[in-house]
Amino acid sequence: MAAQDDMSAEERLIARYFRPLAREPGALGLGDDAAILTPPAGCDFVLTTDGVIAGVHFFADDPPETVGRKVLRMNLSDLAAKGARPAGFLISVALPASVEESWLAAFAAGLGEDALAYQCPLLGGDTDRTPGPLSVSIAALGTVPRGKMVRRSTARPSDCIVVTGTIGDAALGVLLRRDRSLAQRWRLSDAFAARLQQRYLLPQPRNALAEAVLAHASAAMDVSDGLAGDLLKLCRASSVAAEINAASVPLSDAARAAVAADPALLETVLTGGDDYEILLTVPAVRFAAFQAAAQAAGVPAAVIGVITTGSGARFLRDGEMLKFARPSYSHF
Amino acid sequence: MAAQDDMSAEERLIARYFRPLAREPGALGLGDDAAILTPPAGCDFVLTTDGVIAGVHFFADDPPETVGRKVLRMNLSDLAAKGARPAGFLISVALPASVEESWLAAFAAGLGEDALAYQCPLLGGDTDRTPGPLSVSIAALGTVPRGKMVRRSTARPSDCIVVTGTIGDAALGVLLRRDRSLAQRWRLSDAFAARLQQRYLLPQPRNALAEAVLAHASAAMDVSDGLAGDLLKLCRASSVAAEINAASVPLSDAARAAVAADPALLETVLTGGDDYEILLTVPAVRFAAFQAAAQAAGVPAAVIGVITTGSGARFLRDGEMLKFARPSYSHF
Repeated sequence: MAAQDDMSAEERLIARYFRPLAREPGALGLGDDAAILTPPAGCDFVLTTDGVIAGVHFFADDPPETVGRKVLRMNLSDLAAKGARPAGFLISVALPASVEESWLAAFAAGLGEDALAYQCPLLGGDTDRTPGPLSVSIAALGTVPRGKMVRRSTARPSDCIVVTGTIGDAALGVLLRRDRSLAQRWRLSDAFAARLQQRYLLPQPRNALAEAVLAHASAAMDVSDGLAGDLLKLCRASSVAAEINAASVPLSDAARAAVAADPALLETVLTGGDDYEILLTVPAVRFAAFQAAAQAAGVPAAVIGVITTGSGARFLRDGEMLKFARPSYSHF
Repeated sequence: MAAQDDMSAEERLIARYFRPLAREPGALGLGDDAAILTPPAGCDFVLTTDGVIAGVHFFADDPPETVGRKVLRMNLSDLAAKGARPAGFLISVALPASVEESWLAAFAAGLGEDALAYQCPLLGGDTDRTPGPLSVSIAALGTVPRGKMVRRSTARPSDCIVVTGTIGDAALGVLLRRDRSLAQRWRLSDAFAARLQQRYLLPQPRNALAEAVLAHASAAMDVSDGLAGDLLKLCRASSVAAEINAASVPLSDAARAAVAADPALLETVLTGGDDYEILLTVPAVRFAAFQAAAQAAGVPAAVIGVITTGSGARFLRDGEMLKFARPSYSHF
């Protein structure tokens, strides 16, 4: 074989769109079999993986620059909930032959923007053609001081239950995305309808709160499959129960307006998922310190209930227990 | 919501098929948002990701117990070529609704067998339904002594070029898998035809050689896209050239028989890919020590040529330079 510049189509694509993102020296410019990550002294690595498939987790015509950002942020949200600082990520992309280069360029640009903003560099990847829908899977790594990863399984009775930000916006946003006429039925302004859809397109993971979670949470997880179902998972893992005051669950003005117009939407809000907020438990004695740290980090955090002995998660409104048809969202 | 055992279908599937594989304490029984990996003292992590899609990288009717093993072994091969010891892996599985539980059970059993055999424990994962073909992506982690990962970019003129095992079996095997009548045209015994197909189904990554690679290789990579193309990548990364004696490239008896029957198959052998052998360069002064280490590890390793100055990779046979239509396999 003669010397020739015979890069494959895959190599060209990686060189053009993904290599510019791989600024971390250990990524070796995506030009080796593997990347190198040197552990900081005294740290554990925290590992998570999450992905999206067109038509399942996002709409094929969603803006390409949000698709890469969304899947990275889904993983960043897991790291935040564990109290971890992002260290980097690997990406696996399956592309249908129909994907335009302009789609890829926008996808990679969005991804690169977030990799910088969250200080979570691209370390490596794998790109393939697929006869199926476009899909993206990310494996992300973070660091915590050794032995300090915040788990789901360590909540204790009498701990306060706290959730960040607002709940239910993305679940309402995806309904609006599917049926734009709902905005009128829910009597939403255009701005409110747009805000809910934006929360679906682009989660706002709470990495700014990771240090406060690490310092003060007894247990934590990210809210991705619906608050009710995720809280139940935390209770099961910790062998405790939870009592929630439904009125205390923080809603955005837009979500509050929708629920006022159609009270049945409360179930969508509490079980719909895609929130990417942090659900955490904080011992009562640490709550003031946690609250100060959350304020300093600029992340809103509301107490919504208390951990008790027993099992299950009860959502109470005006003394009545809410019943949900299905407590959490599942693509299965 | 009342206390209830309302695991989602995804949770049940993970609990039944994947949790039994997650014996490593840091995997937290796959019951948390993330896994914990404590770095051994003085080590770097080596990170790689590789995946397969049904109909692209494997046949949908391949035995399910080989599919999980193949994708894990593809990643293990990258770790071996970098001189790394496996530390664990994350898996991302996209399942069409049509997948039977029996398929999943066999898939997971095969995966679990290899995770044990190669001491590469499952640390975490993500499972989704897809309207597309079944796909599996793995992100694997290994460890090397700090600063010691063996790269592609560090080959030097006059280094010996070495390859492990035999080359081309899987590439011939996939042709036989597509058209069984070729066995007759290539005058292969049933045993030979079966052996070539087996090499396609189930790579034999050279993790036993990792320590010898670490100790003696100046550069290394795994052979996954065809020897000719992969060698060219190594040459480009190292800014060197390679001269290969094609007759020295180690072939199995089965591949040798096929090439004897149809000499044009030599190109398939040298460029077809899916070998999962290690291509490495060894300084001449270290070759005896490397050879002893390879023998002690029970891994066959053959010298096939020499690194020179310049660029390109030349395959010579009887003094003539071979020309290939395309030096490496690409799914693009």
